[in-house]
Amino acid sequence: MKPIITAFERSPDRGKGLARDMRVRWALEEVSQPYDVRLVSFEEMKQPAHLALHPFGQIPTYEQGDLALFESGAIVFHIAEHNAGLLPRDPDARARAVTWMFAALNTVEPPIFDRSLVNILERDEPWYEQRLRSLDSSIRKRLDGLSARLGDADWLDGAFSAGDLLMVTVLLRLKASSDMLDDYSNLAAYVVRGEARPAYKRAFADQLAVFTAASAG
Amino acid sequence: MKPIITAFERSPDRGKGLARDMRVRWALEEVSQPYDVRLVSFEEMKQPAHLALHPFGQIPTYEQGDLALFESGAIVFHIAEHNAGLLPRDPDARARAVTWMFAALNTVEPPIFDRSLVNILERDEPWYEQRLRSLDSSIRKRLDGLSARLGDADWLDGAFSAGDLLMVTVLLRLKASSDMLDDYSNLAAYVVRGEARPAYKRAFADQLAVFTAASAG
Repeated sequence: MKPIITAFERSPDRGKGLARDMRVRWALEEVSQPYDVRLVSFEEMKQPAHLALHPFGQIPTYEQGDLALFESGAIVFHIAEHNAGLLPRDPDARARAVTWMFAALNTVEPPIFDRSLVNILERDEPWYEQRLRSLDSSIRKRLDGLSARLGDADWLDGAFSAGDLLMVTVLLRLKASSDMLDDYSNLAAYVVRGEARPAYKRAFADQLAVFTAASAG
Repeated sequence: MKPIITAFERSPDRGKGLARDMRVRWALEEVSQPYDVRLVSFEEMKQPAHLALHPFGQIPTYEQGDLALFESGAIVFHIAEHNAGLLPRDPDARARAVTWMFAALNTVEPPIFDRSLVNILERDEPWYEQRLRSLDSSIRKRLDGLSARLGDADWLDGAFSAGDLLMVTVLLRLKASSDMLDDYSNLAAYVVRGEARPAYKRAFADQLAVFTAASAG
């Protein structure tokens, strides 16, 4: 049974691949699992039918038979757990890969996501510059730690894992609005390595096609 | 082999149970797993020995034999996966419990954590009131969704799970500095229900004893 995911009918990022359905699309492509997409408008996301799937009225969701999940991290984990290729088989290596999943979403993403919001919503506020400097300082601390740990390895812990998948998507959000990543050549190369994966490219093309079709419609 | 976790030598919250080792202590108590604690100073946390365990120089970490993990969410998941009592056996129910783990840490915690920082670090900034209102609005959106989903159930999805454990610790951080939770009687009762668990009480007493000992020392 093909899973069904939800995505924005009109992505606020205009097809740049920053919406959180991109993570799920990428994971599904990595494990060669075909899927269907149901597009939802901002209006629909606040309706009872969608809130029954996602209590916080966001995307993506994931439905397969009787199972309904939300939260991109949890969906990627579910895909990784039920298919080969995104989590190592060795139990210790698997636990470390899961650690990177949580690190991407709970330690690295929050200041990067805040920065993207501040960039849009607080640009005309008198404190804009100071807020940005403060967030950049938080982000740099994370990048310092991440860069030191990655070193000259290709991925964070051995083979490419769901931890790398989530971390690359988090760093791509930073790359879209800042050149801070250029100060960390190994992290910049890490992100490019992620983007070069065939599964990433297929997922990116598919989410871009939604935006292109919506614009033409 | 007893696992070893790290915790603050002197917790900034003065033993209120808000530091992230509390989540790990609570999970270990729920599954009746004895553990050792190594206390670290803020100075030690920035040293190579600790950074080898935790690339971002934070607590908690978790060591058991050759395995070293960081990120409270990942550690709680590891404990839940290897012991009975924190994740349902039914695969679909288990996937939904994992969803609540990610929801707690990636959707509900970020604005609550930001609010606790703003309360301390930005109190004298000209934007303080406006920042607080904006964060409170973000937090209320999360609480609205969470409260509607919880309804009059005891826990978020059937029996108490690692998802509830993380969600309660996130809401406890809000409760420590705001009375916003009082507007959601079912969420307030949910948090009290979590604090009433014997495992929570043992974990709380243990982290408080660290602070009390340090103050007496």
